[in-house]
Amino acid sequence: FTQSQGVWLGISSQPPSIHLSSKGKQCFLVLRQQQFNVQALVAVGERASKQMVKFAANINKESIVDVEAVVKKVEQTIESCSQQDVELHIERIFVVSQAEPRLPLQLEDCVRPEGEGDEVRMRARALGPRTTTSQAIFRLQSRVCQLFRDTLTNKGFVEIQTPKIISAASEGGANVFTVSYFKTSAYLAQSPQLYKQMCICADFDKVFCVGPVFRAEDSNTHRHLTEFVGLDIELAFNYHYHEVIESITDTMVQIFKGLRDKFQTEIQTVGKQYPSEPFKFLEPTLRLEYSEGVAMLREAGVEMGDEEDLSTPNEKLLGRLVKEKYDTDFYVLDKYPLAVRPFYTMPDPNDKKYSNSYDMFMRGEEILSGAQRIHDAQLLTERAMHHNIDLEKIKSYIDSFRYGAPPHGGGGIGLERVCMLYLGLHNVRQTSMFPRDPKRLTP
Amino acid sequence: FTQSQGVWLGISSQPPSIHLSSKGKQCFLVLRQQQFNVQALVAVGERASKQMVKFAANINKESIVDVEAVVKKVEQTIESCSQQDVELHIERIFVVSQAEPRLPLQLEDCVRPEGEGDEVRMRARALGPRTTTSQAIFRLQSRVCQLFRDTLTNKGFVEIQTPKIISAASEGGANVFTVSYFKTSAYLAQSPQLYKQMCICADFDKVFCVGPVFRAEDSNTHRHLTEFVGLDIELAFNYHYHEVIESITDTMVQIFKGLRDKFQTEIQTVGKQYPSEPFKFLEPTLRLEYSEGVAMLREAGVEMGDEEDLSTPNEKLLGRLVKEKYDTDFYVLDKYPLAVRPFYTMPDPNDKKYSNSYDMFMRGEEILSGAQRIHDAQLLTERAMHHNIDLEKIKSYIDSFRYGAPPHGGGGIGLERVCMLYLGLHNVRQTSMFPRDPKRLTP
Repeated sequence: FTQSQGVWLGISSQPPSIHLSSKGKQCFLVLRQQQFNVQALVAVGERASKQMVKFAANINKESIVDVEAVVKKVEQTIESCSQQDVELHIERIFVVSQAEPRLPLQLEDCVRPEGEGDEVRMRARALGPRTTTSQAIFRLQSRVCQLFRDTLTNKGFVEIQTPKIISAASEGGANVFTVSYFKTSAYLAQSPQLYKQMCICADFDKVFCVGPVFRAEDSNTHRHLTEFVGLDIELAFNYHYHEVIESITDTMVQIFKGLRDKFQTEIQTVGKQYPSEPFKFLEPTLRLEYSEGVAMLREAGVEMGDEEDLSTPNEKLLGRLVKEKYDTDFYVLDKYPLAVRPFYTMPDPNDKKYSNSYDMFMRGEEILSGAQRIHDAQLLTERAMHHNIDLEKIKSYIDSFRYGAPPHGGGGIGLERVCMLYLGLHNVRQTSMFPRDPKRLTP
Repeated sequence: FTQSQGVWLGISSQPPSIHLSSKGKQCFLVLRQQQFNVQALVAVGERASKQMVKFAANINKESIVDVEAVVKKVEQTIESCSQQDVELHIERIFVVSQAEPRLPLQLEDCVRPEGEGDEVRMRARALGPRTTTSQAIFRLQSRVCQLFRDTLTNKGFVEIQTPKIISAASEGGANVFTVSYFKTSAYLAQSPQLYKQMCICADFDKVFCVGPVFRAEDSNTHRHLTEFVGLDIELAFNYHYHEVIESITDTMVQIFKGLRDKFQTEIQTVGKQYPSEPFKFLEPTLRLEYSEGVAMLREAGVEMGDEEDLSTPNEKLLGRLVKEKYDTDFYVLDKYPLAVRPFYTMPDPNDKKYSNSYDMFMRGEEILSGAQRIHDAQLLTERAMHHNIDLEKIKSYIDSFRYGAPPHGGGGIGLERVCMLYLGLHNVRQTSMFPRDPKRLTP
């Protein structure tokens, strides 16, 4: 699209062939290719016959065409297209694939503001994510995965593959999907945590994995999916679990910078349909202690105990308070009360009320929950008993730490949430190409 | 390990503390770190007391230690270690994590030749893949994924995330695992193919994905897993489906070259335990037509019909014949008989007996099956009826092609098979960190 003159050859494109005019002498089309579109004109003249104009005017919307055309500058900006200062003068046009005349829905219905067209957009997935906005969202998502992996690979992490079909639910069996497995039954993994930890015990030192995570929670909210993509990290550390936090926050910062510096086109394409404030972050990342967060909330009028967990509204409020005070959309809340964390969380050695655990937030919503894990089988057994967990069910988990286990920690990030919150969207279904929730299994 | 003198500080390592000698005055340990190990000595002298030697001698195997030591050249090569010309003279030693005195198995049992110790090795996974061989295999596997993604990203492919829980089995329901999904039931995806194709129809042009693939086949062979990692590719093409073959073979060649040029250490580490011939490939990749393959087999005495599928022994034999004639361990067999391929395979327009489909082989074993897909709803319906497939069950699949679909093709590669065959191993469980088969669901 950069040249102002020239022949455009054999480009397969999906045109929502909007026939602005076809009075027998000329017809306008809009040709789309991924996140870009351009106006095109077929006019009776030296190179095009009346028949050709008629042929072009009768191509169904969403059909795929090959065209040969001359790119011409236009005097008036074409507001409706991404390419606003040129149009194509078509000389030859071929239909590669004719769409049926009646589409199951109109693509125009998908480009409404958030909230309005959500259900239509989800059904639209049957047509595939064809809008320029969807193209931008999922190209950006692809880049998030790439930045995540490249950053970690450069830091010496090894990518591992963990099984999704597992024989037992490590935390006791709530919220897991059951699978029929030949003559027995199995479960879908809620997290790759156990396997990441086994790799750390097996001397991999630093590992990551990217893969589906399954949660059989009947949560019908804007931020819950029953299947999502987990970006998971686990690493041994030498002196302090803050080494783990730093590895993770630095990875997030590399992702934010990579998007900001190289994906402005995509960010702006999404922003046209869904306007939002640019995502802000600090270097190094802001780390607050849980008690500091509670103090900020109390100052804002919230009543809560020291060891009480944060409710979702309080998380959001704290996000706003942090933004006002520190001007960042990304921060870490460290040292959660031990009582509100899972049994495998390492207690704070200096204050048994707290733990070496942390959540990370984007625009006031949690995107990662992590901790230093207990790497001593004896302490792990004690903590499991304290939580009234059936030791028989977690025996193999505890046994993993009996044969040499370094101090380690990690966390898991939800890819769809990161993309949603980075772009300032408000429904995780916007950033999942084929979302799964308690009521949605198709397409 | 490169310097011959110096202090080695605070390195966490997992030593299979093989006490070669500890006559009260000195004790030898072997310290392991990932795929490398080194001999270490604690001797009574200026820096170490008799108590320290005794302490070191009593550290359990597989414990994790931090040491401070001087790296010294040795006169006699240390055959048993990867670092053969140096040893560590330990000055301080700390136990980071003490392993229990009785290990569930001896790591030495895992380093036997193939065939002998397979079952022990699989149980050994409970200890994590701690052997130097496993470290090398899984680091190489991590690199295969990276090369696959980087090559495709450079070619303009977009990474997509496809759902693993699906509402219907696209090919009719054989060999799928069933999942309880709230008040209904669902299936685990056997392949991301439908979703890749939807993305192609949605104008993504070229996509890939890396993720788990599930097969409920009761196959207990050296090369079948019920869950494996699929490296999947799909792309629209302009003129000929051989553009698809070329994209895939070029990606494979980039993987082979990347491993050959940068992963010799890992390849040689694996070769010490499992010797094999180096993997050979040609540039460009050899492409034979199915009929040529059949002719070669017939020449070697095999009796088979033109439209008969290749049996596994015949695939292996053909692999050997191709290796003899062309000196390559990697080739493409193109134009399979239409009758032996799935209903969505594009027939050869010039000869209805054949199809635009292909398999790819490494050392005579199939690693990829792919094809040009039918992108026309009408033809797809006809072919499904020809195969006696219930049209109702595949309605949404067929409908995906009604609204503009470019000619396209692709294929899926099994990561574990690629690693197994590249390294010349003989059991896919060697290259799956936590293998799943009909009889194995743990660890």
